[in-house]
Amino acid sequence: MAPKYVYSFGSTGTDGDASQRNLLGGKGANLAEMCNLGLPVPAGFTITTECCTAYFAEGKKFPAGLKEEVQAALKKTEQAMGMKYGDPENPLLVSSRSGARSSMPGMMETVLNVGLCSKTIPGLIKKSGSERFVYDAYRRLITMYSDVVMEKAEGIEPAEGKGVRVQLEHLMDAMKHAKGITEDTDLTADDLKKLCDQYKAKVKEVLGREFPDDAMEQLWGGIGAVFKSWNGKRAVSYRRIEGIPDEWGTAVNVQSMVFGNMGNTSATGVAFSRNPATGDNKFYGEWLINAQGEDVVAGIRTPSPLNEETKNDQNRHLASLETEWPESYKELHDIRDKLESHYKDMQDIEFTIQEGRLYMLQCRNGKRTGTAALNMAMDMLAEKLIDEKIAVTRVAPAQLDELLHPIINPESEKKAKPFLKGLPAGPGGACGVIVFTSDAAVASAKAGKKCILVREETNPEDVEGMRAAEGILTARGGMTSHAALVARGWGKCCIVGAGELKIKISAGTMTAGGKTLKAGDVITLNGTRGLAYEGALEMMDASENPRFKGFMEMVDKFRTMGVRTNADTPDDAKIARSFGADGIGLFRTEHMFYGAGSEEALFILRKMIHAGNDEERNAAIDELAPFVKRDIKATLEAMDGLPVTVRLLDPPLHEFVPQEEGALAKLAKALNCSVDEVKKRGADLHEVNPMMGHRGVRLGITYAHLTEMQIRAILEAAAELKKAGKNPKPEIMVPVTCTVKELDFVKPIFDKIQAEIGIDCLYGTMIEIPRAALLADKMAVTAQFFSFGTNDLTQMGFGFSRDDIGGFLSDYLDKKILEADPFQTIDQEGIGQLITMSVERGRKTRPDLKIGICGEQGGDPASVDFCFKSGLNYVSCSPYRVPIARLAAAQAAIKAKK
Amino acid sequence: MAPKYVYSFGSTGTDGDASQRNLLGGKGANLAEMCNLGLPVPAGFTITTECCTAYFAEGKKFPAGLKEEVQAALKKTEQAMGMKYGDPENPLLVSSRSGARSSMPGMMETVLNVGLCSKTIPGLIKKSGSERFVYDAYRRLITMYSDVVMEKAEGIEPAEGKGVRVQLEHLMDAMKHAKGITEDTDLTADDLKKLCDQYKAKVKEVLGREFPDDAMEQLWGGIGAVFKSWNGKRAVSYRRIEGIPDEWGTAVNVQSMVFGNMGNTSATGVAFSRNPATGDNKFYGEWLINAQGEDVVAGIRTPSPLNEETKNDQNRHLASLETEWPESYKELHDIRDKLESHYKDMQDIEFTIQEGRLYMLQCRNGKRTGTAALNMAMDMLAEKLIDEKIAVTRVAPAQLDELLHPIINPESEKKAKPFLKGLPAGPGGACGVIVFTSDAAVASAKAGKKCILVREETNPEDVEGMRAAEGILTARGGMTSHAALVARGWGKCCIVGAGELKIKISAGTMTAGGKTLKAGDVITLNGTRGLAYEGALEMMDASENPRFKGFMEMVDKFRTMGVRTNADTPDDAKIARSFGADGIGLFRTEHMFYGAGSEEALFILRKMIHAGNDEERNAAIDELAPFVKRDIKATLEAMDGLPVTVRLLDPPLHEFVPQEEGALAKLAKALNCSVDEVKKRGADLHEVNPMMGHRGVRLGITYAHLTEMQIRAILEAAAELKKAGKNPKPEIMVPVTCTVKELDFVKPIFDKIQAEIGIDCLYGTMIEIPRAALLADKMAVTAQFFSFGTNDLTQMGFGFSRDDIGGFLSDYLDKKILEADPFQTIDQEGIGQLITMSVERGRKTRPDLKIGICGEQGGDPASVDFCFKSGLNYVSCSPYRVPIARLAAAQAAIKAKK
Repeated sequence: MAPKYVYSFGSTGTDGDASQRNLLGGKGANLAEMCNLGLPVPAGFTITTECCTAYFAEGKKFPAGLKEEVQAALKKTEQAMGMKYGDPENPLLVSSRSGARSSMPGMMETVLNVGLCSKTIPGLIKKSGSERFVYDAYRRLITMYSDVVMEKAEGIEPAEGKGVRVQLEHLMDAMKHAKGITEDTDLTADDLKKLCDQYKAKVKEVLGREFPDDAMEQLWGGIGAVFKSWNGKRAVSYRRIEGIPDEWGTAVNVQSMVFGNMGNTSATGVAFSRNPATGDNKFYGEWLINAQGEDVVAGIRTPSPLNEETKNDQNRHLASLETEWPESYKELHDIRDKLESHYKDMQDIEFTIQEGRLYMLQCRNGKRTGTAALNMAMDMLAEKLIDEKIAVTRVAPAQLDELLHPIINPESEKKAKPFLKGLPAGPGGACGVIVFTSDAAVASAKAGKKCILVREETNPEDVEGMRAAEGILTARGGMTSHAALVARGWGKCCIVGAGELKIKISAGTMTAGGKTLKAGDVITLNGTRGLAYEGALEMMDASENPRFKGFMEMVDKFRTMGVRTNADTPDDAKIARSFGADGIGLFRTEHMFYGAGSEEALFILRKMIHAGNDEERNAAIDELAPFVKRDIKATLEAMDGLPVTVRLLDPPLHEFVPQEEGALAKLAKALNCSVDEVKKRGADLHEVNPMMGHRGVRLGITYAHLTEMQIRAILEAAAELKKAGKNPKPEIMVPVTCTVKELDFVKPIFDKIQAEIGIDCLYGTMIEIPRAALLADKMAVTAQFFSFGTNDLTQMGFGFSRDDIGGFLSDYLDKKILEADPFQTIDQEGIGQLITMSVERGRKTRPDLKIGICGEQGGDPASVDFCFKSGLNYVSCSPYRVPIARLAAAQAAIKAKK
Repeated sequence: MAPKYVYSFGSTGTDGDASQRNLLGGKGANLAEMCNLGLPVPAGFTITTECCTAYFAEGKKFPAGLKEEVQAALKKTEQAMGMKYGDPENPLLVSSRSGARSSMPGMMETVLNVGLCSKTIPGLIKKSGSERFVYDAYRRLITMYSDVVMEKAEGIEPAEGKGVRVQLEHLMDAMKHAKGITEDTDLTADDLKKLCDQYKAKVKEVLGREFPDDAMEQLWGGIGAVFKSWNGKRAVSYRRIEGIPDEWGTAVNVQSMVFGNMGNTSATGVAFSRNPATGDNKFYGEWLINAQGEDVVAGIRTPSPLNEETKNDQNRHLASLETEWPESYKELHDIRDKLESHYKDMQDIEFTIQEGRLYMLQCRNGKRTGTAALNMAMDMLAEKLIDEKIAVTRVAPAQLDELLHPIINPESEKKAKPFLKGLPAGPGGACGVIVFTSDAAVASAKAGKKCILVREETNPEDVEGMRAAEGILTARGGMTSHAALVARGWGKCCIVGAGELKIKISAGTMTAGGKTLKAGDVITLNGTRGLAYEGALEMMDASENPRFKGFMEMVDKFRTMGVRTNADTPDDAKIARSFGADGIGLFRTEHMFYGAGSEEALFILRKMIHAGNDEERNAAIDELAPFVKRDIKATLEAMDGLPVTVRLLDPPLHEFVPQEEGALAKLAKALNCSVDEVKKRGADLHEVNPMMGHRGVRLGITYAHLTEMQIRAILEAAAELKKAGKNPKPEIMVPVTCTVKELDFVKPIFDKIQAEIGIDCLYGTMIEIPRAALLADKMAVTAQFFSFGTNDLTQMGFGFSRDDIGGFLSDYLDKKILEADPFQTIDQEGIGQLITMSVERGRKTRPDLKIGICGEQGGDPASVDFCFKSGLNYVSCSPYRVPIARLAAAQAAIKAKK
């Protein structure tokens, strides 16, 4: 016996349900589910994926029995809708749509308005009262049908510009041109009628066949075309990429068309079961009488509010559905309640009222802001609609960002037009006067005037100004440039790589988007979107939500992976701790040489760098020890009881070479040599590719005394705290290693000092060089922990200098060569291999190896999920991303348990 | 029954042979083998590795039966030597040495002069006629024995500086100090006798035990200590590293001591069965009467020649062994014949004559120069001593280098003292006047004056001067810096990274090793060793050997892997072809922008780089096409019939930005903009890490027109040649790819042009970015061939910028953190993983994937061997290394067949 190929849905009976996704496709299963809930869905039927397979198996022939089943289902559909397909008086129109098991957006075909022909047109004109409406629908049917059914499905591959669709569009353009109009909507009913005749003639001319004027022929043409589109070029190559098997096939959904624009008893609207911007538990939406779905969103007519309580200043004067058509409103409100109790989440609803009758076109989980997501999760939990586990999954980690930074008021931003676009490097919004130098930023902040620091790109000398500014805007640099890293570390609004921006510091002006602004002019930045606006936009602080804390406590009930922070100062450490960090995953010793208060330590470091011989160098190193100890001690104290991973000095020394004459002279005096000699010694350190130069452990090996000094300072700091009754937990991490022999070189120095001072301390390494990942089994012989430096691992793995990708990254993203910036989210396909390989090999040598990640991606939710799956013990990220990482880690754990 | 633990060797009977390496250890098996050949080896016996295992199994006790076996073997030894162990009149002394299956140099212990005690001392004094000789031997015994047997073997671990050996050395120092002498040799017999007494007292004091005065006790102490040293710290950690199993154990060789310094009927010498410098089939060596082995090499006394026919100017006045002691000479000569016919290779022999009796201490395959290796291989083949396969393995590939370049006469070099050391970047020798600029080098060459170009480091603008100079010397840069790459490509003598070198171009001077030299002074470079000499050293041309061609023909009979060349010009292509290259593995399109004759193309390229908009840029690209076509055509023609892999433009554009004002002005005029604007556009291209910046395919994607132009030029060049009856075989290679999507972006451009022009051409990619290696399976979906760019793969894999490793590479090599410069020889452990992974994954996708390597290491023998084992189809290297790679490939194939 042949299997059942056709499943009806609608008020007269529904055969399928949501569980039959494989058989009915995603769309078919959802339509069935809505019908089962008793919702007024336009009736129709689904032809199964099995039928598609049979269709191809029989050489593109409909299998036996299908015709009868379709006829029976069509009859049920007609009954449900009270209309008749192909009927001259009361004609039913249908759509024919694809629906695969998993969504293949835009890859397959759709035909709308099927059933419109010379026999049915007059009846529809009579019913709708609009000749224009009917001929417009007819024109669309001819276009879609000739293109999809008569050309593509027949395997015709016309030369570029010779396809039937393009040629029909030319006819329309010619008519508009002849009439001197530009908009389709300016065409009259007569125009459209004439156009339909031209269309049909052109179809005949191009394809050698008449456009079918029989409703049943149209129906079967539409069904066959959807099946055939499963093996269309686009769909096949999409399946190759996504790994979808060819044998799955697609279902076909034949569904009654309903029209909200069929006169003044018709309407259309969209609604949310709760407010998607605030989360308020109030039914919220908009509707328009005698309109189609696209009219609501197009913005030409102002939509009316759904009900009285959600009216606002823009639409207060308009009649709500609640007062206008109270019955429809009540029906819709009941549906809203039904949907929420069924789906247990906020629903985004599309509805149409055709001649007073309400139809549900779609319902799905609604998009929402972070604030709304948090409020809804907590409300639904209180309502006992959902449990804690589900509540935790209801807020996307990235949405938390919004709750942690001031933002531009979205309403205010909607009305403004940005003059410049760049990369969104630091989240939130900022507003202030333009300053072009770090000094000006500091002065402005001192004077109580908020400012935006605008630079070509920033360097360590700008750090004070960056701290003082509300926001930062640079013309160059990528998402992990200096400016971006520093800004994110501080949770500061920042836009980088705004390539169009031209700065003339001498003139005190900047130019972009045809505007020239000068120092002192006010601008506003949206660092979340990378947009800059002229003037002051209204700001708002979204972090006031009292439920944030409760939510995060709940999150930690499910989290199993640690979340640490990258922090170099007691202040950062305290912020991170307040955000729930489990420790510090990366403390950069070099931080003490940047920014305010660093002058003395920096000067000694420079003496070390420019030393003329080992004796001078070692003396400078010894002089540096108290500073190192002081800074580490302060942070260890702030993190008392929690682990603090201290990375030994990492950057190439040339970064610290002074350029300014005064500094050079001071240095020359201290070193008792000429300024020229100081310059020369500095210049000798210049490197062609400093990222792959003399840095990290390579410095620690060349200057073993430097290594010794640092280790001693760290352990002495811990010892002093311990003596004072504290519980310091330092871990020492060696950077830039590529062979275990580097670790083995430093280890005896570590062992000796540790034995001397007697402080417990783990000894580990960054895994940031590809070779170290490949040889992780050997690295783990000496290393007690690994920490993935995914910034460098990505740089070396891709051969992408993060300072220089500005030159081609946007091309790569635009041309889809890369799916995402790999410095923002771990490239799981490539760099991910190095990570999983390291974890596996490292733990093979040392089963209890502690493994974390301290690259920028440690705060990216997708990367946190990947780290969890890879078996890492913790991620580490900038303080402001700690809550995001905590949530992502909890969600990963929940997902894994499923 | 207990196994046989002791194997005797010597004239009274030898139990073992060379096949028993596992049982007798390497040394023991060799000693047995020499005895079996009838050579007069000082007699002795080997205690087996099995005995060692039994010793440890029984808790460091000698197994039952060993004592008796040793006694029996000692008796045989005494008989063979005509002396008696522990005898007051005619005492036999022995050594106790380790001997594992595979060599563990210096990891285990040795005790010499065992058997010397108060009972045997007088007899030995009488026999040797020298009290000083005997007490010196006794002093050495006490030192070695107390250190090895009484301290180390007992597991005593003294604090640093407190070991018994150090304390004994203090006594000797104190005595020398008291006597006001500095050399050990100035101590008299009385001094030494007194010292021996002090030594014994100190041993008692430090170790609490008497130094044993009984010969048999000494013997067993020595045997036990060697066994115990198998589990000494050094040996254990060496075994861990080398993967040698603990259960193998070591053998102990107890062998009679013989002395060449026992009066005027004693002598010692070294000999080679053929001349190791020239390969001449003449017995060659040196000897000294009444001397120890070290005296021959120490150079205090001039050694005498072995025979009349090999006398030279230095030793013509001295008596040869042949005339002095003709019987001993004849015996030695017979041994030489016997050894050559047995080992079928030139032997390096150590011999001692004790009281007129000849003893063979050692024989092994002798080291030789490249010339000698080639001559011996061809001679022995003619003599039918060896077959072709063996002849091919007899020349080390690296030795061929010597045959291809002029060198400093080794005799002349021996007497000279270098004033500067650097990295040996380009092989051979060169002598000429110092010049400091490229222009001066060109002028000097034009004037017929050979010169050495001395620079801080070189850049593309120095290329003409480098070509003109005999040799190149730079203060900076590593083995793969610009200077090194260019020099090796030309087979030119070159030293780079001579860090000590200070150049003052303004003064026209350079300083190093305390010497200041000026332009015009003559220096000589040894580029093979990295040494620079003041003045002119004698040069010689070793490439005249007529057998080279015949040898290389033989090599190719065994070779299965292809050897291509990296060549960018028809000249280089012709040289490589004459050296037997199978094609070009890397043609760099950018070559046309460097050096003489490049002005016009470079100017157009600069117009492209500095273009103000796409239109200007594309116009410049089109203008460039004829140049690209011209250059590629010429090289395709030179390589007619052989494949030529053309790499699309690779370097970052900033490399070509002009600095010089004239060039800037010309460019500004051509582009119709200001010089400042040109400068700004150039400066905008500056990158922090250009090696990981906008280069390779990244340029080809941003500027797709550039890609198209190049592909068209290559295929049109081939089409024109084909039309002219030639057989061009171009292959197009995309550089710096990290994802297959880059290849997929360029592929349609390639397909379109190929379809248009109709030339067969493979489309492939470099694998030089770690990510490309990790995703090789995907890369091979589009790529028809891979070529490993091991320079970049090593840079990214290690995170080593090859331009900057000068800062730490020498530290890394000195401290054994790296075993070799990974830019010279493939790091098989790390980078090798990426290569084997790529081969495996690539061929899984595309079984016929053609795979080669075009990095610098393609000419390194160890790397060639690795490439062969990894299944590569070819290696590609600079023209002068083609013969080396051919030989290495042949040897790899021979090795694999075994």
